[in-house]
Amino acid sequence: MTIPTLTDMRSAHDLIRPYVRRTPVRVSSYLNELTGAELFFKCENFQEPGAFKVRGAANAVFGLDEAQAAKGVATHSSGNHASCLSYAAMLRGIPCNVVMPRTAPQAKKDTVRRYGGVITECEPSTSSREETFAKVQAETGGDFVHPYNDPRVIAGQATCSAELLEQTDGVDAVIAPIGGGGMVSGTCLTVSNLAPETAIYAAEPEQADDAYRSFKAGHIIADDAPKTIADGLLVPLKENTWHFVSNHVTDIFTASEQEIIDAMKLTWKHLRVVMEPSSAVPLATILKNPDVFKGKRVGVIITGGNVDLDKLPWI
Amino acid sequence: MTIPTLTDMRSAHDLIRPYVRRTPVRVSSYLNELTGAELFFKCENFQEPGAFKVRGAANAVFGLDEAQAAKGVATHSSGNHASCLSYAAMLRGIPCNVVMPRTAPQAKKDTVRRYGGVITECEPSTSSREETFAKVQAETGGDFVHPYNDPRVIAGQATCSAELLEQTDGVDAVIAPIGGGGMVSGTCLTVSNLAPETAIYAAEPEQADDAYRSFKAGHIIADDAPKTIADGLLVPLKENTWHFVSNHVTDIFTASEQEIIDAMKLTWKHLRVVMEPSSAVPLATILKNPDVFKGKRVGVIITGGNVDLDKLPWI
Repeated sequence: MTIPTLTDMRSAHDLIRPYVRRTPVRVSSYLNELTGAELFFKCENFQEPGAFKVRGAANAVFGLDEAQAAKGVATHSSGNHASCLSYAAMLRGIPCNVVMPRTAPQAKKDTVRRYGGVITECEPSTSSREETFAKVQAETGGDFVHPYNDPRVIAGQATCSAELLEQTDGVDAVIAPIGGGGMVSGTCLTVSNLAPETAIYAAEPEQADDAYRSFKAGHIIADDAPKTIADGLLVPLKENTWHFVSNHVTDIFTASEQEIIDAMKLTWKHLRVVMEPSSAVPLATILKNPDVFKGKRVGVIITGGNVDLDKLPWI
Repeated sequence: MTIPTLTDMRSAHDLIRPYVRRTPVRVSSYLNELTGAELFFKCENFQEPGAFKVRGAANAVFGLDEAQAAKGVATHSSGNHASCLSYAAMLRGIPCNVVMPRTAPQAKKDTVRRYGGVITECEPSTSSREETFAKVQAETGGDFVHPYNDPRVIAGQATCSAELLEQTDGVDAVIAPIGGGGMVSGTCLTVSNLAPETAIYAAEPEQADDAYRSFKAGHIIADDAPKTIADGLLVPLKENTWHFVSNHVTDIFTASEQEIIDAMKLTWKHLRVVMEPSSAVPLATILKNPDVFKGKRVGVIITGGNVDLDKLPWI
């Protein structure tokens, strides 16, 4: 276990600044009235590849020495980490190999390829993924960048809330969706150091509530094949992210599928941004727990905006 | 005819600053590659009521003296002007009366009422609208704020490109959708004075191309019942907007319904913002006229983001 520090976050921020956007913070009087809170939405969906994961990916990619960089990076992911790592590797001009289940959506594969990522398909099972990835890594020598359990990745994600704190002059609470815990860990790293009085909440789908159950139990519990519309939040915590979640998270709230869809539509309508179902989970839980947030200044991380526009969940 | 000046724009900007957002400018490497231009999208869809029209409305509302303010404002509109004027009037705490066709979408009526606007319904014909509006105005004494032919409104809309010029450090061209010409006139007012070397383009649906035909003919031509998905662009030019369009616009381009829908979906997908069909017309014409824009820095006004999320045109 390697726990990144505030210094790692600051180095990451300096390193990735040319490649990553300082995304805007958006507000909505309507949503403030609705929740009774003052909400500051940090729009990571406005990153070029559409997700906060470009921060951690860029920190890993641009931190490699020349020898390793020549061999490139490698990962397994069927989501935003795959496209963000490909994007960062493209910016540095180095190879990126991605192992993806053959059943992954065509659009996700297209995005990875558009950024120059090379896809090796595996069967949609853990054993096939691990076997295929080991082979790809052995052949290419690519540096493994885990989607969230990598300290370089966590330090990169931590830069997001450093910006949020600056842009808002501080908040009473921050809330972010939780899957593997990369964004939440980065938030913990920055906020617990720079604004220790600020509460840190995580938001999770009821139908993939392994982080919630882990948090309550005091040890990592993994879900057995969770199924939720918030498809960015399916993966379990790992030791590095568990460290931050167990030590620094104030509480974890959950929301139902319908509550997530309603919050997603509400944000599209009133904030007028395109965001993924995963990114709607925080607002869904704020609406569900008004007493926790009422009267507070709350930073809400909109983690990503990659969504199939032909299949919107409310239509 | 009363033509607003650069001084009017500056006074408007000082007056409305507390009530209107300085909206962000967004960029997309993907859309830049696709068009060969460097595009700067000014996101007026991020205004609280979702459209640039809050600028002109706020300038009219907050410019009233106390005696007139007590009687409030009045207008006829079935679109963004109605909700933006209601919103501005709500902020000042004065009455706003709106005449709307009874056939207007329920969502538009709901928005006006949410902001405290009082709706009087008319039949969907010019004669009924004028008759009903005359009656409402006589009864209430509300100051008539025309959706675009009002110099206060044009001076308010002109503040948008003043911000755009500051935020981009100047551009080679600006392009905005054209309906009645309020935004384009405001853009002409500011850009022709502050950046006279910058080209000013207007973009219009083929199926509502009255401004295009007026521009080519050299006099105002009104369409007979135009029909387009870009429902913010149905109205004809009037003398104040014609003044700016005929004197300062470099050229007007048109796009088909399908081209508008494609550009709208492209923007949702890659810029990840929710915008109206009307706001997609500029990008549609940029894609259609690549030689005009290639290699140029181009400001693109995203005019509004009020769209029925249950009825997206590509689904």
